[in-house]
Amino acid sequence: MTREISQRLRSVQDPVIAVVNDLVQAMPGTISLGQGIVHYGPPSETLERLIDFNSGPGNHIYQDVSGIPALREAIRHKLSNENGISLDNRDVVVTAGSNMGFINAILSITDPGDEIILLGPYYFNNEMAVRIGGCVPVVVATDENYQPCLDLIEAAITPRTRAVVTISPNNPSGVVYDKEILLKINQLCFKCNVYHITDEAYEYFVYGSAEHAYTAAFPESNDHTISLFSLSKSYGFASWRIGYMLIPEHLMNPVLKIQDTNLICPPVVSQYGALGALQAGPDYCKPFVEGLNNVRLLVKDALDGNQHVQLAHTEGAFFYLMKVITTMPAMELATRLIKEHMVALVPGDAFGLSDGCYLRLSYGALEANTVDEGVGRFVDGIDSIVQ
Amino acid sequence: MTREISQRLRSVQDPVIAVVNDLVQAMPGTISLGQGIVHYGPPSETLERLIDFNSGPGNHIYQDVSGIPALREAIRHKLSNENGISLDNRDVVVTAGSNMGFINAILSITDPGDEIILLGPYYFNNEMAVRIGGCVPVVVATDENYQPCLDLIEAAITPRTRAVVTISPNNPSGVVYDKEILLKINQLCFKCNVYHITDEAYEYFVYGSAEHAYTAAFPESNDHTISLFSLSKSYGFASWRIGYMLIPEHLMNPVLKIQDTNLICPPVVSQYGALGALQAGPDYCKPFVEGLNNVRLLVKDALDGNQHVQLAHTEGAFFYLMKVITTMPAMELATRLIKEHMVALVPGDAFGLSDGCYLRLSYGALEANTVDEGVGRFVDGIDSIVQ
Repeated sequence: MTREISQRLRSVQDPVIAVVNDLVQAMPGTISLGQGIVHYGPPSETLERLIDFNSGPGNHIYQDVSGIPALREAIRHKLSNENGISLDNRDVVVTAGSNMGFINAILSITDPGDEIILLGPYYFNNEMAVRIGGCVPVVVATDENYQPCLDLIEAAITPRTRAVVTISPNNPSGVVYDKEILLKINQLCFKCNVYHITDEAYEYFVYGSAEHAYTAAFPESNDHTISLFSLSKSYGFASWRIGYMLIPEHLMNPVLKIQDTNLICPPVVSQYGALGALQAGPDYCKPFVEGLNNVRLLVKDALDGNQHVQLAHTEGAFFYLMKVITTMPAMELATRLIKEHMVALVPGDAFGLSDGCYLRLSYGALEANTVDEGVGRFVDGIDSIVQ
Repeated sequence: MTREISQRLRSVQDPVIAVVNDLVQAMPGTISLGQGIVHYGPPSETLERLIDFNSGPGNHIYQDVSGIPALREAIRHKLSNENGISLDNRDVVVTAGSNMGFINAILSITDPGDEIILLGPYYFNNEMAVRIGGCVPVVVATDENYQPCLDLIEAAITPRTRAVVTISPNNPSGVVYDKEILLKINQLCFKCNVYHITDEAYEYFVYGSAEHAYTAAFPESNDHTISLFSLSKSYGFASWRIGYMLIPEHLMNPVLKIQDTNLICPPVVSQYGALGALQAGPDYCKPFVEGLNNVRLLVKDALDGNQHVQLAHTEGAFFYLMKVITTMPAMELATRLIKEHMVALVPGDAFGLSDGCYLRLSYGALEANTVDEGVGRFVDGIDSIVQ
């Protein structure tokens, strides 16, 4: 007997990273330009804090749903002093990664059938979360440089719209949104009485002249902006599962209900580790980001002249989203690149890209000395497969 | 401007433990008989495994959505060799606590508006999860000894029913369900083509002649039984957030979609800790459970003769659910016990008990030498407040 899985889950795409990783594991030696991870681990302060964790009486029992007080205080200090964000009518909730922050936000503000505006190409887990919540993802295209189009967003807002989601620096495009356009989106959300969910997991990953704009620092943003942050990338902290939300005070009650039901509390051992990471601060990330900038330029040099590939100008995160000039489906191309050339990228379908063959290349996990090899395999692969 | 929180979240009760803990924190020195926690921490093997975690290359990046292979293998071994469960057509998913396993299950098998049968009094987070999922909790009463009534469950099944939930040993009643009744419920679910979700977080906490029956060990249970387990209680591991699900193979895909979107992967540092805990095994818990049995009998002795309290016979978990003979609302009584007598219990409203004044007493966090004080305060408080 087979029971039915739910309709909402049948409408959710397969987790693309797991699909790609399965292919990679079947081909030992494959270089992964797939998952959005960095090549470095957490600062030494993280592990030093585990001594405090272990010696603290009561640290093995549940702690506050919203996070341990010391970590929430360190986060408030970071937001206020480093990012210039007013904490009036706002509160901080520690989550087990910023994906969980996104789910908390969606469930707090939507009923089944409500609409959430995502900018296309979207981050796959955002689209998946909206569907899991029983809601409708409304995808609004970005322009040819992957920058948001204010008029298209405004036109997409209906009475069922509950939020507009922006990610900057962007996953999957690597684009950094202009401060001015982010401000206008935030004001549009204010005017239309919808929330603005901003994912800032790549806040420190900006290159060249680009600067990251903190949406929550905009005037009149306090009551309708939901900002999501993560330690996963900045502090090489992905497996520890710590992120945080900055939310309007009136959302604390629903978010705590969800988190109590889903997680009870963020893992306390990881929260102590996070305290150490925030103590090291963004100075820890800086040299790594500079290194990644070199890698970024190397990748660009290797791909810029390739006749099969169209590369957009990007200045953030650690992604290049490429259009490959072929009629081959992206999943087929990605599979062949792994099987025949031992290099893994993520097919664009996962990001909702259906007007051609797109691949996302992540260079965060690469040190400069492995770039040549990985990108070399990719170029060889494209030249050989696409022709 | 205030935006609206969702209707589904407005229908969800406040997290009662957080509410009680806030009251406790305002009264330093209060003895908590509230939250379901144990007084001991994890075995030394847990901390020893952190050395492996830290020395493993790649342990700071994301790992498998379903858990690290070594931990899933240790869990399979436990289920198969220790619990006599067949793993045919089944798979294991590590979660960040068994609450998350419950949410994974609900979202996998329900669409908004579907019904989930809970036995009353229910575990509050189950009812909250059903509502957060946009579904309808259908509460079926248990008998005067808090044992399930098969005919009432069968009568409650409708075409919208997707699952029946049982918790044994039970939270909040402390009752251990008879193997025979659990088997019949499992067969009823099979016959009616609905899932049987069994929460076995208290598997090792049985006293006297009671024995824990593993629902997944029943014949013909493989395709419709969703079993949830937790390390939180058994291994003093609550803050580490590790539990696991044993699910029919056909639910792997939806569960992995949800977990990828919600958590990406369980915290890897905690998974290494969990490996150490399972290595220590149930022998680690045994002396603690024996100690808790003494505490249980002490509490029973102190309360059995009290004219204001009706105590059911219980042989599991570490709870007593009492009916207090008063017209006072349970939340009011619980609040006064904290403020006037410095002892905290959980009011029965959280478990859906509305036909009188109920309180749940948790003795897991107590060592024998603090029982006299805590229960003494409670008896004094009841005698003084109820009269």
